[in-house]
Amino acid sequence: MTVDHEFDIDTRVSPVAPNEYAATVTDRWNALGGPNGGYLVAICLQALRHTMPFPDPLAISAFFLRPAAPGPATITTELARSGRRLATGAARLMQEGREVMRVTASFTDLALAEGRTLVFADKPMLPPPHDAIDLLGGRSMPALSLTDRVEYRLATMPGWVQGKPTGDPSMNLWLRFKDGRDADSLALAMLVDAAWPAVMEIGAAGSVTVEMTVHVRARPVPGWLACRISTRYVIGGYHEEDFEIWDATGTLVAQSRQLGLLP
Amino acid sequence: MTVDHEFDIDTRVSPVAPNEYAATVTDRWNALGGPNGGYLVAICLQALRHTMPFPDPLAISAFFLRPAAPGPATITTELARSGRRLATGAARLMQEGREVMRVTASFTDLALAEGRTLVFADKPMLPPPHDAIDLLGGRSMPALSLTDRVEYRLATMPGWVQGKPTGDPSMNLWLRFKDGRDADSLALAMLVDAAWPAVMEIGAAGSVTVEMTVHVRARPVPGWLACRISTRYVIGGYHEEDFEIWDATGTLVAQSRQLGLLP
Repeated sequence: MTVDHEFDIDTRVSPVAPNEYAATVTDRWNALGGPNGGYLVAICLQALRHTMPFPDPLAISAFFLRPAAPGPATITTELARSGRRLATGAARLMQEGREVMRVTASFTDLALAEGRTLVFADKPMLPPPHDAIDLLGGRSMPALSLTDRVEYRLATMPGWVQGKPTGDPSMNLWLRFKDGRDADSLALAMLVDAAWPAVMEIGAAGSVTVEMTVHVRARPVPGWLACRISTRYVIGGYHEEDFEIWDATGTLVAQSRQLGLLP
Repeated sequence: MTVDHEFDIDTRVSPVAPNEYAATVTDRWNALGGPNGGYLVAICLQALRHTMPFPDPLAISAFFLRPAAPGPATITTELARSGRRLATGAARLMQEGREVMRVTASFTDLALAEGRTLVFADKPMLPPPHDAIDLLGGRSMPALSLTDRVEYRLATMPGWVQGKPTGDPSMNLWLRFKDGRDADSLALAMLVDAAWPAVMEIGAAGSVTVEMTVHVRARPVPGWLACRISTRYVIGGYHEEDFEIWDATGTLVAQSRQLGLLP
């Protein structure tokens, strides 16, 4: 059981009416500018999971409509279609009567995915976690409470940390929940948004997300997760961020892309 | 004006009530299995554009709920948020009372995108269109009416066409509308779905789309469009297909990813 872990406590939703759930957006998953987007997606998925006949989010699209704030939230859900293999629905996360996030998601049972497997890319190159650099060295960053919940290991210290952005908006890193919770398919949809934006290596102070799509490709095994993150195209301030997560067996378990805007 | 072109005629929607539009799904954009998914997305975007204060779709997510059929359709729209720079809404494409597709999209005015531009990848390698191979050599494929509307030029003939899949699910190609219509930001959301699935080079007979996300990155200039298409991960039958479109000036104008399932 994972019910005592921070992620599960802080994404919990309570049914208050048909297709309506109450939740609390805590201040324990804050990134630059407030509650982490992936954390809000996870709250929406917890609400959607109540109405879904399948356990695993497979394809998730989230539109970031307004900034969220720590405090109460209401999530309304809708089931658009439930089929033999997939079920799809939408969730609206509301705060003070205004829609903060719109999530649409298809759920499935990934244990029943039985088709072919063929992989045309290598897993991210990284030293073993115990030989890699701890980004924070055990310290806490008060304004970024997300870093008290998730920990990172890197091959090299990022340039922007040292005030010298490398000019290359790509990075590989390990991450995991700090309290020992292992990632499951739902948590992957949060973890693809749990690192700093790759564009910090081109001197950006951050990134404002417009939309994020996550495809969960397999259930991860317990342990550290290897991530490959990159931005290839910054055009008129808009940029994509691609994020892959691989589990300890070297299986790609999630793939995401965000469209963001330089602040 | 582009109103006389096939794409504009066949994606036209008529308001019938507040936030409700009538359309006809024609049989003129059929791919394997029926009306092309990108064509349906374009119909939804035409409806959404009626309620949007900005001209360009920027981020589009489409969930494919049921197969579409040629015939009448109703599109209902909803405006979720309209802000200074972005407006976001959702469209449901219904046929015979059942939801076929759910599209969520943010619109903007791409002419006002004024931030930095930095590109970390090259445009697709292709010979000039007049030196490239015409996939169909002017022939028509009766069951695939999409190929009467869009034409293709390639560096080499695909392996699957010759009954010998190469084993490499990636390809570069040129495409454009056959009737001379130039692509605009809305048409790009259709064209990212206008080629055959890359997985045909691993012997797949096709691909069933679960979800497609499109990010329109710039308005294209007139002319041929260079495309880079690839699948890197086939896992349990699910696979992503990444599709980039570059315009004649060498600008990335659209980026999309689909999650599909091998049939």
